[in-house]
Amino acid sequence: MGVINRENNETVQNPVELEKSIREIKGYLLTAIHCAGSGHSGGSLSAAEIVGTAFLNIMKHKPFDPLWKERDRFYFSAGHKAPLWYATLGYCGYFPISETALLRKFDSPFQGHPDMSKVPGIELSSGSLGQGLSVAVGDALHAKIKNLDYRIFCLMGDGEQQEGQIWEAVMEASHHKLDNIVGIIDKNNLQIDGPVSEVLNIDSIEAKYESFGWHTIKCNGHNIAELLRAYKEAENIKGKPVVIIAETVKGNSISFMENEAGWHGKAPDRDELKTALEELKLENFPVDEMIEYAGKYQKEKDEEIDLTVPLFSKNYWWNSSAIMKVEMKPTRKGFGEALKETDDERVCALGSDISGSICIDEFYKSNPKRKERWFSMGIAEQSTASVAAGLAKNGMIPFIGTYGVFAAGRSLDQIRTTICYGNFNVKIAGAHAGISVGPDGATHQALEEFFQIAGLPNMTMISTVDSIETKKATSASIGIDGPCYLRYAREATPVVTTETTPFKTGIATIIRYKGKEEDKFTDAFSTVLSSEYKGDDEDISIVATGPVTAEALRAAWILKEEFDIRARIVNISSIKPLDKKALIDAAIDTGIILTVEEHQKGGLGNLVSSAVFSSSKVYGVPVIFDMMGIDDRFGTSGQPWELMKYFKLTAEFIAERAIALLKRKKHRDNF
Amino acid sequence: MGVINRENNETVQNPVELEKSIREIKGYLLTAIHCAGSGHSGGSLSAAEIVGTAFLNIMKHKPFDPLWKERDRFYFSAGHKAPLWYATLGYCGYFPISETALLRKFDSPFQGHPDMSKVPGIELSSGSLGQGLSVAVGDALHAKIKNLDYRIFCLMGDGEQQEGQIWEAVMEASHHKLDNIVGIIDKNNLQIDGPVSEVLNIDSIEAKYESFGWHTIKCNGHNIAELLRAYKEAENIKGKPVVIIAETVKGNSISFMENEAGWHGKAPDRDELKTALEELKLENFPVDEMIEYAGKYQKEKDEEIDLTVPLFSKNYWWNSSAIMKVEMKPTRKGFGEALKETDDERVCALGSDISGSICIDEFYKSNPKRKERWFSMGIAEQSTASVAAGLAKNGMIPFIGTYGVFAAGRSLDQIRTTICYGNFNVKIAGAHAGISVGPDGATHQALEEFFQIAGLPNMTMISTVDSIETKKATSASIGIDGPCYLRYAREATPVVTTETTPFKTGIATIIRYKGKEEDKFTDAFSTVLSSEYKGDDEDISIVATGPVTAEALRAAWILKEEFDIRARIVNISSIKPLDKKALIDAAIDTGIILTVEEHQKGGLGNLVSSAVFSSSKVYGVPVIFDMMGIDDRFGTSGQPWELMKYFKLTAEFIAERAIALLKRKKHRDNF
Repeated sequence: MGVINRENNETVQNPVELEKSIREIKGYLLTAIHCAGSGHSGGSLSAAEIVGTAFLNIMKHKPFDPLWKERDRFYFSAGHKAPLWYATLGYCGYFPISETALLRKFDSPFQGHPDMSKVPGIELSSGSLGQGLSVAVGDALHAKIKNLDYRIFCLMGDGEQQEGQIWEAVMEASHHKLDNIVGIIDKNNLQIDGPVSEVLNIDSIEAKYESFGWHTIKCNGHNIAELLRAYKEAENIKGKPVVIIAETVKGNSISFMENEAGWHGKAPDRDELKTALEELKLENFPVDEMIEYAGKYQKEKDEEIDLTVPLFSKNYWWNSSAIMKVEMKPTRKGFGEALKETDDERVCALGSDISGSICIDEFYKSNPKRKERWFSMGIAEQSTASVAAGLAKNGMIPFIGTYGVFAAGRSLDQIRTTICYGNFNVKIAGAHAGISVGPDGATHQALEEFFQIAGLPNMTMISTVDSIETKKATSASIGIDGPCYLRYAREATPVVTTETTPFKTGIATIIRYKGKEEDKFTDAFSTVLSSEYKGDDEDISIVATGPVTAEALRAAWILKEEFDIRARIVNISSIKPLDKKALIDAAIDTGIILTVEEHQKGGLGNLVSSAVFSSSKVYGVPVIFDMMGIDDRFGTSGQPWELMKYFKLTAEFIAERAIALLKRKKHRDNF
Repeated sequence: MGVINRENNETVQNPVELEKSIREIKGYLLTAIHCAGSGHSGGSLSAAEIVGTAFLNIMKHKPFDPLWKERDRFYFSAGHKAPLWYATLGYCGYFPISETALLRKFDSPFQGHPDMSKVPGIELSSGSLGQGLSVAVGDALHAKIKNLDYRIFCLMGDGEQQEGQIWEAVMEASHHKLDNIVGIIDKNNLQIDGPVSEVLNIDSIEAKYESFGWHTIKCNGHNIAELLRAYKEAENIKGKPVVIIAETVKGNSISFMENEAGWHGKAPDRDELKTALEELKLENFPVDEMIEYAGKYQKEKDEEIDLTVPLFSKNYWWNSSAIMKVEMKPTRKGFGEALKETDDERVCALGSDISGSICIDEFYKSNPKRKERWFSMGIAEQSTASVAAGLAKNGMIPFIGTYGVFAAGRSLDQIRTTICYGNFNVKIAGAHAGISVGPDGATHQALEEFFQIAGLPNMTMISTVDSIETKKATSASIGIDGPCYLRYAREATPVVTTETTPFKTGIATIIRYKGKEEDKFTDAFSTVLSSEYKGDDEDISIVATGPVTAEALRAAWILKEEFDIRARIVNISSIKPLDKKALIDAAIDTGIILTVEEHQKGGLGNLVSSAVFSSSKVYGVPVIFDMMGIDDRFGTSGQPWELMKYFKLTAEFIAERAIALLKRKKHRDNF
């Protein structure tokens, strides 16, 4: 199969062979996405000919020597097209291609977004758009100063061209005359929010690259002969970088996927896969083997992880019995509902291309008139944050939002220097918080926002337990004069509060287990504002924030029912301002503080620790302090609940830790 | 004087009047910069005609009603040209122009970089390049949906065009057909590192804007007739935004400043000012009055602040007596020296336009051969971070650096997702840390990096006490396999370590006051690695990091000499990894932990708190914990030492707090 190495004069596939090979690559990537149950079909298909032609015919590389110094490099700047990258590398012989059946699974090399440390041939870990071309510039500068003649191919999306960093790199590549860079734009004209021309028009992209000093080549990105010609032309350009603008069709060659934005991040079911493989004219394709292999692997991993979960006299898992019954609903839905219901005419919203995913599109979806207060800004988080400041400057209340890794990280300087320093009334939605994001993997699991955002002057930071609290917090944020960051999650999580549960910015709620009821889980708990709580001689305080607070509730249940241990849950929905009094009282009343967060450990915990131990009231009071969270590492792909168990953040682990702390306390007190 | 409001049909100055008015504006801004002793002369002069013509002739505005809803807006996206903005507003009658003599002074409205909350007519707080045009987009969208006919003028630098965010905004303004935006590029062809064409070429800037769908107008930025024509042409363009590319001369109209990059951020002395005013043909100009006013104001402020500083039996200020004698040297020099001396061929360095200021240019300055391992990247922090990853990917050890606010904040997503997730061997210099940066003000005083950087997996974070320790840490960072962030400062601070003082990443040093010596300050202290320290029954532990640790040393001196209080100084040069054992030992041995940081309070303190109180060893041990730092606010302009006193971070305040904590402890222990 197509191991290509022109130096050793090995077979160069001709267009006919290439066409067939690329069809097979498409078959494998769709099968892998089916096995994963999620993944990016549309973009993987639109770029298949671009990538297949490069790897099977154009590039110098040695699959049996992936780090060969003189190899040509190929980057996927848009990491979500990983299924295509994996399938192509497997097809070239970097590893057995059937392994790609493990796409997006826990502990698999084939992460939802590529991890270069796990898969041979993956040149770059990517997932945050707009960074690949800059890395290519560094790689190209290295080749120049070391007189190596390798070339760097950088595949980019068309929506990705909206990222300002792209234009920094484009300017740098031209300034340094990096003719060893070949940028390739997979121009399928569709991004998540719709046609690129409507979300944020990038055309004429050709004129833009030319004005930045690049040589441009246009071609049909599905026509192998044209692609080969384009790559050859690129090779002969000296003194300037080259960009190949490849016109493509998203979901190309699968009838029901073509030009459907909906297939951007969707997996085919068994029947759809069958049809797809038929349309690809792939007979006796190893689908069943791959599905079986994937299923077996998943089963083993599930068992492995389940063996690590502490056992109790019975099963307390969500909805495992009538009394453990809860509604499961993503917190992001609550954000959308609040935006939908607000009647404040000052509110407006800005789109950053993942509007449906974070539910910010609820602002106008059922209310077309509001479209005039909706502004599509494209994938340009930095500018979007500053644009919001310009709207707020005029008395409007703009909501912006994207995944937390980008909402907090990509535009932090804009949030600090423009939004917070100007004390502008901008509301920032940081979605997809925590590892429960699941199969998308590390790059998309926001775990550092408490550090990044709560440290900013003038900022209010909210982190909510369920969809109902998220709705209340979002509505409340409109009334806060100044910047506010709302952290919420992706996955459906337990609804543990009700319409009548109290919520107040800056005040924690105290949640207590009253005793099991027959109807449903939430009825077994009582919740009051900390300012109204009197204390009840509990044995331990569990301080939590966000959806993982629901796990703390379940832990309180287990602790009481199995060990007669009484836990005080301090639900911190305001990270800033922090309800210090509630924390100090909890420390003094119970003598044990355990913080639990779906975040790098210490994001909440460090704040709680300094709030408690700075208090002169606590001086001399013996207090055990401990923290649970992600332990200074990146997340990983897997199913949301699988990852919650792996990172030891479910009720069973919280209860186990609580018991250990109580033991330690008893031991020391009798000491 | 030129209050312009075409609606009320007031005087429109003719070109002759304009020329004279603008000469006066130049005189005032240069006088203000002279009074400040620092500030940006070059760019303020190159843009004077652009700005003066707009405010005095083109714009609709009411100086007596600065927030008039229908006013035209004018933004300085490049905030460092504030002296020009202040002088022009004063000239228009927004406030008495002589007030601008207070430029860059403590507690003055005229901050080093503009603060919209302090000065009428200042439309936007700015200082971080590349954000203004985005805010203008928001302002323009507001005008469109509210059917207001005001226009937004956005002054940008030419070097600023290297920021990717500019191109996000350029794309957005075009997409939304914002013909109420007039961008103006002050094209003086010089940035701090040299000619724009050499640092990172932006030309043809005209072709770039056209390819992004803008209408472009070129003119001579010093020719008033041409400027008036350009502004009128801009007014008549419908359906697309307009950019005026004004060719200018940096330092224009002052012979010895023209085209001198050195005058970017330099103040004229008394003689230079005299010559300048002569060249501007300004007779009986109120220079002496302004200088006297500024001097008087500064004197009053000094007295005000000095009155807040705790007094002791004698004066312990640096170099106030023979035994308080220390060398003063900026930590950044140590960074430069280490880069200069390294003989590791893998090391390379990337320039971000402020290379001299952060001393990264020492890498090649005296070693021209190294220029081949020096890459000028322009003002493009995001791309630069990712380019460094591309170099590291090939076994090189790239150093990148800029001011901490940008090094940590502007490229945080790139540092997280590309550098840290890929575990690339990139060294990041975060200069100008803390409020001791001085007159540049809040936007340039980095106070949040411990939050932003120490929370990232795979990252090592160093913060050093003086130039010698910074040199050691920089050399050591080359040996660390993985990303490393070095936080250092701008101002000359006491050198309190020697070549032989131990330094080890991840290990704190314990510094003890031995007793005063006759020769110099440092000889009165002994320093050992915490791993070798046995403890000496001290009364209190002061945990500090960075240059403020020198204040902790001086505090230890005061405490011993005046009150016989023995302090253990724990010098934390590694924020990550943190020397937890040293902190736990300090808590148990002394029972009091006081953290001191020139950072938002808690950056160091929260980490110390959770490290100490998570330890089961500390359970039951009464420990007083307190933190000193910046209290959740932005910095401000002022002289470095003036600000250190204002923010209560000098030895006198530390000693006072230590005494209070000891009193509290005694009181509680006898309770």
